Amino acid sequence: MYTANIFPDDTIVAPATANGLAALGVIRVSGKNAFAIVNQVFKGKDLCKQATHTIHYGHIVDKDELIDEVLVSVFIGPKSFTAEDSIEISCHGSPYIQRQIVELLSRHGARLAEPGEFTMRAYLNGRLDLAQAEAVGDIIASENRSQLDLALKQMRGGLSNSLQILRVGLLDFISLIELELDFGEEDVEFADRSKLRTQVGDLMLAIRPLLDSFKYGNAIKNGIPVAIVGRPNAGKSSLLNALLSEERAIVSEIAGTTRDTIEEEIHIEGISFRFIDTAGIRSTEDKIEKIGIEKALQKISEAGIVLYIYDLSTISLEALKSDIEMVKSKNTKAHILALGNKLDQTPSLNTSELLSALNAEEVNQHFEISLNEVKYDVLEALRKMLWDMAQLNQNSSDTIVTNTRHYNCLKEAIEALEHVLVLMDQSASSDLLAFELKRAVNAIGDITGQISNDEVLGNIFGKFCIGK
Amino acid sequence: MYTANIFPDDTIVAPATANGLAALGVIRVSGKNAFAIVNQVFKGKDLCKQATHTIHYGHIVDKDELIDEVLVSVFIGPKSFTAEDSIEISCHGSPYIQRQIVELLSRHGARLAEPGEFTMRAYLNGRLDLAQAEAVGDIIASENRSQLDLALKQMRGGLSNSLQILRVGLLDFISLIELELDFGEEDVEFADRSKLRTQVGDLMLAIRPLLDSFKYGNAIKNGIPVAIVGRPNAGKSSLLNALLSEERAIVSEIAGTTRDTIEEEIHIEGISFRFIDTAGIRSTEDKIEKIGIEKALQKISEAGIVLYIYDLSTISLEALKSDIEMVKSKNTKAHILALGNKLDQTPSLNTSELLSALNAEEVNQHFEISLNEVKYDVLEALRKMLWDMAQLNQNSSDTIVTNTRHYNCLKEAIEALEHVLVLMDQSASSDLLAFELKRAVNAIGDITGQISNDEVLGNIFGKFCIGK
Repeated sequence: MYTANIFPDDTIVAPATANGLAALGVIRVSGKNAFAIVNQVFKGKDLCKQATHTIHYGHIVDKDELIDEVLVSVFIGPKSFTAEDSIEISCHGSPYIQRQIVELLSRHGARLAEPGEFTMRAYLNGRLDLAQAEAVGDIIASENRSQLDLALKQMRGGLSNSLQILRVGLLDFISLIELELDFGEEDVEFADRSKLRTQVGDLMLAIRPLLDSFKYGNAIKNGIPVAIVGRPNAGKSSLLNALLSEERAIVSEIAGTTRDTIEEEIHIEGISFRFIDTAGIRSTEDKIEKIGIEKALQKISEAGIVLYIYDLSTISLEALKSDIEMVKSKNTKAHILALGNKLDQTPSLNTSELLSALNAEEVNQHFEISLNEVKYDVLEALRKMLWDMAQLNQNSSDTIVTNTRHYNCLKEAIEALEHVLVLMDQSASSDLLAFELKRAVNAIGDITGQISNDEVLGNIFGKFCIGK
Repeated sequence: MYTANIFPDDTIVAPATANGLAALGVIRVSGKNAFAIVNQVFKGKDLCKQATHTIHYGHIVDKDELIDEVLVSVFIGPKSFTAEDSIEISCHGSPYIQRQIVELLSRHGARLAEPGEFTMRAYLNGRLDLAQAEAVGDIIASENRSQLDLALKQMRGGLSNSLQILRVGLLDFISLIELELDFGEEDVEFADRSKLRTQVGDLMLAIRPLLDSFKYGNAIKNGIPVAIVGRPNAGKSSLLNALLSEERAIVSEIAGTTRDTIEEEIHIEGISFRFIDTAGIRSTEDKIEKIGIEKALQKISEAGIVLYIYDLSTISLEALKSDIEMVKSKNTKAHILALGNKLDQTPSLNTSELLSALNAEEVNQHFEISLNEVKYDVLEALRKMLWDMAQLNQNSSDTIVTNTRHYNCLKEAIEALEHVLVLMDQSASSDLLAFELKRAVNAIGDITGQISNDEVLGNIFGKFCIGK
């Protein structure tokens, strides 16, 4: 847990809303002097004397100079986001005005907040645990229903509760084993080894699904990588354009949507797919082209889904087989969707030949299309197929790990537990057991921040935006 | 004044804060069903039963699906911005979440607000007059102290009060003259013509400074156009770069400042200058180059300040004179600042020759510089000089017109009043007098919106951002 000096006793200020011209902008102030500092520049009621969760009209003034008409919201700690006394100033949405107010408050004793510092204070003051605090960032960044659901669940303590139960069981054992250490010379065993073995086994059974859920959670959070693979002129780019033009039309219908998008990201029913257009694959002696193909193969190995597109009118059985085997040699786990293009032309293979070849290669899905004249319902069917392939048999009510830091903590915990089992097989000494058990407990505790250090906190909150 | 049907009785919704990832986003709802509509999707206290200006924690839900944890602010009309029942929902600053909430409220009976519709309602409900409502847009767009001061003054009713006094005086006369019309055949004069003449004269005296203030107000609001003029290689671009690099350094120091900037806009102590780099001016027979020079000359005619830059080491008296006379032939009103560049080289003219030539040409300011090795204090001196030239002897406590619409209204008013004087000289009939007097009164009334029509309102509020 934290030492006292980590609890900040200064007052911080930052804009809380996005930068840009708008009707309103909100500036947040939090800390023990929040009311006193804002009072100095607020012409209106005495903010120290107002009830919590009330709103007050007034003016922000710099000496005699009016800066803006504002509404000020008063939150008396601990009934605030940070659990400290807090103020939200709702001013006109002019970046200039917001800068002026933030600067003015800085001159009157508030400090410009670091990125994520409001949320960090909520954590330090016990309002949120670390996993919940991290979820705040995920909520803000969420771009679709699935991402939002996972982040909300995490913020409401889903992951934290699961972990807490696991952790408490182990803590009892650790204290018993530490007791053995106190009697070091006497070779006593207070902790029942067979019980411990059962409990460690149960714990590993509980952690494994969390670790496995990360693949799904990560796909939801960061999108499922889809590699588009095929020979030159098979239609890779046409396919991407067809899928993207659909998407672009949808995005542009939503007024005011300006996001940092990966150009090739497509959302289908709440799941995002990151399409990776690879260079055409063929045998070549050209050095530069070889590098391109090498990169394409690398991308295949990272993909969750491989969309293999081929030309129905020219493909041979040999080519089909060698392409798919090449894909499988690079990635044994990816789902493969074979997409026959140029359905409008005479096919080079008959249907049964084709299907039996695809079956033999264990291709997961097959679909035929004509990208020259692609129709809405055909695209919809293709999108549905991709969406189905993305359903990684995850039960949505399960706790899902989405955060790489959590994943790494869980991995460390399970490694330590595996080590505990090995040590017990070897009848190792209590101190070795205690060491590994503590490592497991600490790794789990790191996730919710029951044990953490400044550096870890800096890494976590430094990624937040200012004002959060 | 408005007919009843212009008063909207539906409830509107829109995001009020800028789009982008941030800690918070605020969504505004206003209208007679605001509380009832939000209640349907808010899991928390019954919003219809809360006191005005209070804040309530809860969840926005779509049936059973959680959308976000929020704080909801309640404003009971007429104690709100629009004077209607209003709600502000403060949610996580995710564009996705904000869209979801806006869409959800739309499905429950709120209508997506048109640009400026919240402010328009404030106007329609008598909370602001039209000039004040327009000032809200100016406040948001203000980028420096001078712009903000003007906009705040206008919002607080500065211009409206000045105009109201002028208008009321005329209204009395109009009613007397209309009385004369009722007695049309009898040739009576209820309105004392000499008194009317005095009053019209006083009114014109009051309007003229407002009209004159527009040049200053417009310069504050839109920046002062500065044309940079000079022969090829005199140093026009170096000068612009030197001024801009200063500015860019300042801008980049302010975290999160992303604005739509005119690349050549520079703020000096609260006044913005729009620098226009013109093509080098010289005699030429080249057709394309002639077009460039023609454009440069056009820009000179629009400038408030002409920054004439010449090469100290090569300029001849003849060239200096002909350049400055060319500038003056295009723009008799601009302030001219002559800037001798290449101070590090041997000058081609001696100082007294140069100064007397500049004096003879009535150049307002003269300055020498070496743009090869420009120093901070030299640039500062130049900036100070520009700033001084921008001070158009306007007393800052005067009412200042910044809005083109207001300027045009005032121009129409003064034209009508001039016509009134001419008509009285000609002993024209009462109905002609009444017509022109009414035109003047209406023109003034248009500014504050005492007389306006839907189209005018559409023009004004359509320029606002959504959510304002």
